[in-house]
Amino acid sequence: MPRIQFQIPFTTPVSQHLEDARERHLHWIREAELVRSQDAFDEYLSWDLPQAAARTYPFASAEDMFVLMNWFSLAFLFDDQFDAGKPGRADRIADVARELIVTPLRPAGIKPRVVCPITLAWVQVWEQLSDGMSLTWQTRFAASWGRFLVAHTEEIDQAALGGTLDLDDYMAFRQRTVGIHHSIDAGERSRRFEVPPQVQAHPVMIGMRDAAADAIGFMNDIHSFERELRRGDGHNLVLVLQRQRQCSLDEAIAEAYQITDQRLGHYLWLETQVPSMCKELGLNKDERRQVQMGVEAIQHWINGNYEWALDTGRYAAAKDSAATSAERCGRGSLEDLLSTGH
Amino acid sequence: MPRIQFQIPFTTPVSQHLEDARERHLHWIREAELVRSQDAFDEYLSWDLPQAAARTYPFASAEDMFVLMNWFSLAFLFDDQFDAGKPGRADRIADVARELIVTPLRPAGIKPRVVCPITLAWVQVWEQLSDGMSLTWQTRFAASWGRFLVAHTEEIDQAALGGTLDLDDYMAFRQRTVGIHHSIDAGERSRRFEVPPQVQAHPVMIGMRDAAADAIGFMNDIHSFERELRRGDGHNLVLVLQRQRQCSLDEAIAEAYQITDQRLGHYLWLETQVPSMCKELGLNKDERRQVQMGVEAIQHWINGNYEWALDTGRYAAAKDSAATSAERCGRGSLEDLLSTGH
Repeated sequence: MPRIQFQIPFTTPVSQHLEDARERHLHWIREAELVRSQDAFDEYLSWDLPQAAARTYPFASAEDMFVLMNWFSLAFLFDDQFDAGKPGRADRIADVARELIVTPLRPAGIKPRVVCPITLAWVQVWEQLSDGMSLTWQTRFAASWGRFLVAHTEEIDQAALGGTLDLDDYMAFRQRTVGIHHSIDAGERSRRFEVPPQVQAHPVMIGMRDAAADAIGFMNDIHSFERELRRGDGHNLVLVLQRQRQCSLDEAIAEAYQITDQRLGHYLWLETQVPSMCKELGLNKDERRQVQMGVEAIQHWINGNYEWALDTGRYAAAKDSAATSAERCGRGSLEDLLSTGH
Repeated sequence: MPRIQFQIPFTTPVSQHLEDARERHLHWIREAELVRSQDAFDEYLSWDLPQAAARTYPFASAEDMFVLMNWFSLAFLFDDQFDAGKPGRADRIADVARELIVTPLRPAGIKPRVVCPITLAWVQVWEQLSDGMSLTWQTRFAASWGRFLVAHTEEIDQAALGGTLDLDDYMAFRQRTVGIHHSIDAGERSRRFEVPPQVQAHPVMIGMRDAAADAIGFMNDIHSFERELRRGDGHNLVLVLQRQRQCSLDEAIAEAYQITDQRLGHYLWLETQVPSMCKELGLNKDERRQVQMGVEAIQHWINGNYEWALDTGRYAAAKDSAATSAERCGRGSLEDLLSTGH
């Protein structure tokens, strides 16, 4: 299937620190034992997560770019730890997810209660990611991150029950599983600024974040449905549409494209409402600049994630590797990163 | 020991719905299986939590007063489930605490993953407590509640290790275990209003909340150290001071009183800064009214909790009941509310 192109009416930069930070990061993931075997390393390399971080946080410092890449690695690798066949796996995933949820709710640097490479890495990353950020930002990040991880656990519980969601339920659920809200929150940390709290609470900004989350989630679904078919995972807009409409894959893709484009259009319309929101809230020049940077943080995610998805090997339709074989056996990953010791 | 009196320069009202809501509530806790035996019921009655709710949320509607009492019961009863002697108890408490943490992070009404009377009651209460509140408020409440419950688990882990904190560490830790931040957040729900987000993020409001949390926590410590001595629990300002200063109990109480009075004084000083904060933030008349109600919510907690503590049987120094015998055996409660089924 040819890659589907979206019309995104803005471009976004790529961090100048990509190459240097990538090198440090690839050393770090081995040290943190997030990637151990050569097969897993090759698969990980093919995803090119450093590119994703460099596109979604283009203005981070060299040091912060390294931290953000480390964060991406533990989040993506955790996402792949779902193994339908293994008894007790759903409970272990829930335990690890809850440890990841509580980490930002206690003072930085405290040893995790549930110990595995993923939780140990997150304690380390969170200490750096929270550095210098206000309590208000930390509160927002912790809730965004927590909502995402709780939904992740529900996704696994549903899969275990063999449940299938209808279109409306899927769309509401997808917004929670896509993980965009905390990713946008991290954009503030990446440039060391904060969007004023009254703006974050305003319907225009809430609407922009939600529309962006939908658009990005559905774009990811369109890019990744082949991988999810291999994994036997029906949590994908294309596959939900195909099932609900009883239609062909091509028809389902076409409708998924329409839905995505509509959410993207809604985001763009909300962007035009930003100046009147700033006026309504009586923001001063500094605050308007923070809002502008907050909008850019969303744009970096919409376009940066899209550009990366066109390029990454993670969602490749036709590939033949150790990871593909693992996926065909219903496993998302080559290595178990959730066990206590080794 | 005579009860220690604090000088609190404001009075606060008591809900007119106290008696009606109490009756409904006492029926509900039996139905929810939070209290089962006659001994446990008698002990629970002696605490008079309905009075605490009626004093701390004096303007709640009759229906909401009932919900708030239900919430108090599950929070206080959970707090008492710590049983040092039972193997695996700390892990079970952590599991239940984490379930309580994630409940406000998913759509209301979803069945808990960790099932016991406490978690089932919380799902029910949260659905009502979150009703009509903004995403911003829910985010703040979820983080306040989560930080408290995480600290609660740490408290148990520390007790299991036999650890003793020094004064500075204890004071920082106490602010996290007292559970006042989410209690103040609930004040907004009890009157169906919200403090503007830029106010909640302002150093004056953050400082008021922290100073109130300290003052209330330390007042509770002074009221409850006899009970904590019985339970062999050193997590109490009086007992930390006695240990650190190697002084008499009376001297420790006197110093604890000084520290508490100082934090109360700091809270009162911050209150005088509220008008200039409102001016600085350019708040309109409606927003200033919301700030005023936000300040009242803190006052209701400071004074309401104090008045209730003078009256309740929960912290009674000299008492002789089944609960006292349980406490002497190192148990906080008469019944196990954390097990799955019965």
